Amino acid sequence: MMQSISAFQEARARYQPKLPAVLCEGKIGIQLGDTTQAVADEEEIRKMFPLTYGQRIAALTVGEDELSSVPLRVGVVLSGGPASGGHNVIAGLFDALKSANNDSRLFGFLQGPKGIIQGKYKELTAEVIDAYRNTGGFDMIRSGRDKIETAEDLAACEKTFAYMGLQGLVIVGGDDSNTNAAVLAEHLRAHGSATSVIGVPKTIDGDLKNEWIDTSFGYDTACKTYSELIGNICRDAASAAKYWHFIKLMGRTASYVTLECVLQTHPNVALISEEIQSQGITIEEIVDLIVDVVVKRAEVGRNYGVVVVPEGLPEFIPDIKAMIDELSTILGQDEAYIQSLPDHSERLQYLSTQLSEASAKVYSSLPPETQEVLLTRDSHGNVPLSQVETERLLIDLVSDRIRLLNAHKEKKIPFSPLSHFFGYEGRCTPPSNFDADYCYSLGYTAVQLIRANLTGYTVSIRGLIKPSDQWIAGGIPTSMMLCMEMRKGRPTLVIKKALVDLDGRAFKIYATSRGEWALKDSYLFPGPIQYFGPGEVSDCPPITLTLEDRSVMD
Amino acid sequence: MMQSISAFQEARARYQPKLPAVLCEGKIGIQLGDTTQAVADEEEIRKMFPLTYGQRIAALTVGEDELSSVPLRVGVVLSGGPASGGHNVIAGLFDALKSANNDSRLFGFLQGPKGIIQGKYKELTAEVIDAYRNTGGFDMIRSGRDKIETAEDLAACEKTFAYMGLQGLVIVGGDDSNTNAAVLAEHLRAHGSATSVIGVPKTIDGDLKNEWIDTSFGYDTACKTYSELIGNICRDAASAAKYWHFIKLMGRTASYVTLECVLQTHPNVALISEEIQSQGITIEEIVDLIVDVVVKRAEVGRNYGVVVVPEGLPEFIPDIKAMIDELSTILGQDEAYIQSLPDHSERLQYLSTQLSEASAKVYSSLPPETQEVLLTRDSHGNVPLSQVETERLLIDLVSDRIRLLNAHKEKKIPFSPLSHFFGYEGRCTPPSNFDADYCYSLGYTAVQLIRANLTGYTVSIRGLIKPSDQWIAGGIPTSMMLCMEMRKGRPTLVIKKALVDLDGRAFKIYATSRGEWALKDSYLFPGPIQYFGPGEVSDCPPITLTLEDRSVMD
Repeated sequence: MMQSISAFQEARARYQPKLPAVLCEGKIGIQLGDTTQAVADEEEIRKMFPLTYGQRIAALTVGEDELSSVPLRVGVVLSGGPASGGHNVIAGLFDALKSANNDSRLFGFLQGPKGIIQGKYKELTAEVIDAYRNTGGFDMIRSGRDKIETAEDLAACEKTFAYMGLQGLVIVGGDDSNTNAAVLAEHLRAHGSATSVIGVPKTIDGDLKNEWIDTSFGYDTACKTYSELIGNICRDAASAAKYWHFIKLMGRTASYVTLECVLQTHPNVALISEEIQSQGITIEEIVDLIVDVVVKRAEVGRNYGVVVVPEGLPEFIPDIKAMIDELSTILGQDEAYIQSLPDHSERLQYLSTQLSEASAKVYSSLPPETQEVLLTRDSHGNVPLSQVETERLLIDLVSDRIRLLNAHKEKKIPFSPLSHFFGYEGRCTPPSNFDADYCYSLGYTAVQLIRANLTGYTVSIRGLIKPSDQWIAGGIPTSMMLCMEMRKGRPTLVIKKALVDLDGRAFKIYATSRGEWALKDSYLFPGPIQYFGPGEVSDCPPITLTLEDRSVMD
Repeated sequence: MMQSISAFQEARARYQPKLPAVLCEGKIGIQLGDTTQAVADEEEIRKMFPLTYGQRIAALTVGEDELSSVPLRVGVVLSGGPASGGHNVIAGLFDALKSANNDSRLFGFLQGPKGIIQGKYKELTAEVIDAYRNTGGFDMIRSGRDKIETAEDLAACEKTFAYMGLQGLVIVGGDDSNTNAAVLAEHLRAHGSATSVIGVPKTIDGDLKNEWIDTSFGYDTACKTYSELIGNICRDAASAAKYWHFIKLMGRTASYVTLECVLQTHPNVALISEEIQSQGITIEEIVDLIVDVVVKRAEVGRNYGVVVVPEGLPEFIPDIKAMIDELSTILGQDEAYIQSLPDHSERLQYLSTQLSEASAKVYSSLPPETQEVLLTRDSHGNVPLSQVETERLLIDLVSDRIRLLNAHKEKKIPFSPLSHFFGYEGRCTPPSNFDADYCYSLGYTAVQLIRANLTGYTVSIRGLIKPSDQWIAGGIPTSMMLCMEMRKGRPTLVIKKALVDLDGRAFKIYATSRGEWALKDSYLFPGPIQYFGPGEVSDCPPITLTLEDRSVMD
């Protein structure tokens, strides 16, 4: 018979994740520092969180006042898309609970937040945990995208926790889930519940970060997986010397994934949504920019190259955004009529009379399939811009332009494009040593915050670019990350997504190097993630983290 | 400034590839064994190779009769698509040449065989070689797809070699290139040229193999790269629990890549072209088979899964093949008329009157885009079946069927498919230790064959599933692999591609396990290629090699 786990899995199961020094001592204490306030809309948020607003920053210490060691019952839930290291967060929770008191127990809610609402969970015993140490994925207890929003949801959670006798709940998720955690914490405190709620920052997008959260987990592993593949494609481009590879990467809002991967591989062209938006770069200008590189490389005999773009790009292109807004309004009024028109060209004709001149021009420049996709609306009534395959759209537009250029040229510019999308490949990779250690430490720290009876906190581990024994572990009141933002037309409580800082060192290094990267082959090949071997290969943090670290900037 | 090579590249450059024991001794000799004959069409091939037919098997020995150590001038050329380890073949050539005589020199022909014909080459000095040790890709001297076919080509090669004073030429390529090498060797011998021609077996497809060639280089690394990604996707499927992933892998003829990846990851469904053809499984039956697994998994709440298919699949489906043949004939006669028809439905209508009933049924079952693609012809006049995106075609057909099933069902079967193509990502990965060692040994051995003044040989290294010091290094007369095959209507000299042996152990293990893999989640996660760490992780050969090894079978 075939084996049930691979040799890699067997070796990797033996890895012992590294912890900050403070968690390796027998006695762990906690120190509460400054009180806090929300990043914006202070008064409004204070009102929404009367009991959990303004709490103090918590730092773990080697404890003279050791934290309570009464046996605890703790629940954990995974929320949203998978990110590498989730299982290690849970292993960290388990080990920290057992280390403080062997009678403590850990429960996993199944399939995300609805598992709490419906009271579906299973006990996570040593046997379960051991099978998942240092593995990728969220399959141990699965995840879900439901939110705990309504009064009924909140009451159902409260009931589940009371029934289970939980002292703590750990919510592993992104910005929305941590916002949710804060609301739940406040609700439970207000209802006299004994359950602490602690959030853990997760998202491969890397956009849940701030002064206190160096990065979210999963980002490092996803970026390293994509960078491996981009590096391989760069090498293939330079070897075959006849293809232009257009690579789309995950990242709907922030372009952190793209920026990290670009710094790891030096492709010929990259687009950073934040820059496109900030500079107001139009779709035509984007095509100009790519065509320019294609032409200049062709002049020196390089009829190949690599272009990397973030998935969310179209929403940041101002004229596309404007066109979509107009289209939404038109479809809101005339959708039935438009769909009743006999064919594509009549629809195109009609729309050209309804859209503004600028938007009509943008719309007509798109390939017919894209035009048609944009005439449908999703279940929320939105024009499904996210269904547009950005990498294929750019290929179509660049191809058209090059065909035009070639029409009157004796020496044609060769242009053979290929498209790739790297997304699902990188969400469930076995976590890098960095993510394995970070996640285990996140889980281990979450338990200490519960032992300290804190609620409405998000785990904060800082100094991640240093060796893990020097990491600073603690928690921040989740409410300090909150602010109000207009979403779907109404003010909504959110944790603002961190966007690429166009004045930051990471972006600047890219911006000053890209001219050279465009024309030369300056490709870097980071290789597949290494879990063994020399530390400078297997243990390095993301480049963007290193570059944006304050201690480095000074 | 940013670094010019990654930490991984730096560490990997220091790797010293392992050699068979016989190549580690100071004195290398050669022993000639049995005479040989072609695998088929002996008489015909003997006539085509009067001077190089029937040569003896060559085995390297720890030499009492040490091979000549006169300084040599050797050229190397890369042919066809890139495969991981090509640079190590060249490094092996270089080190072997220098080790025998430091005055020997190595030259790389640029951009494939046309570099020989046009006399374009560069000297490969230590500086060049050192920058490429253990790297992926073919970018050191690039490759090309031209063949040395005509009398003029052969004469041009002869002239280049004479001008350069080459004692040897090493051709790195697949079945066609090795066939080409045999022809060139015969030509040179007949014209009194002193240049030996030695072939090196390369192709990620893994279909250049036989009793004497355990595998071609690049296969291991490509399969491991794809398996990493398939494993990640399997983990994602089980975590998100809502997608069916359809993954297409490279492999136009043989399904060795798919078989290896399937054994490394245990996806829910896999299709092996050789089995489809041998069993005469129709496209409808293939859809049946996938739908059956989707339905059965849905019954136990598993609304997700992973399907892996080889790129070349459609050509092996008998009714698709028959339909394509008919379509070719029809287009040969009526292409202009068909293209003149005003729209898709009229073309469909016309074809239904021209195709046989069976083929018309198959054609009409295809999605409209696929139908239209099949009405164009490529530059060779062929219906471009290879442009059909197999993974998307299957998704369309399975979706249609499930829609039909759901039409009258209360409890709908959820089916959210996603498509992937893993190809270019795996051709230029930094070579695995296996490929790094194998390639270096191939290059090192090629030099010994040249020192022994042999020509018309392909390097043969056997026992690859054993530790490298036990590998058996030598060469086989290339002509023994040759036979005649009808290609494009005329008998052509070829090395037959090795197809998956449906009676072999590798296929049988898959065949007996697939029922279980279909319904359960038996996924294996091989992880990214490891170059460091425990040997059972970093140094293992492909599974198919291990299973098909004769010594294991006995």
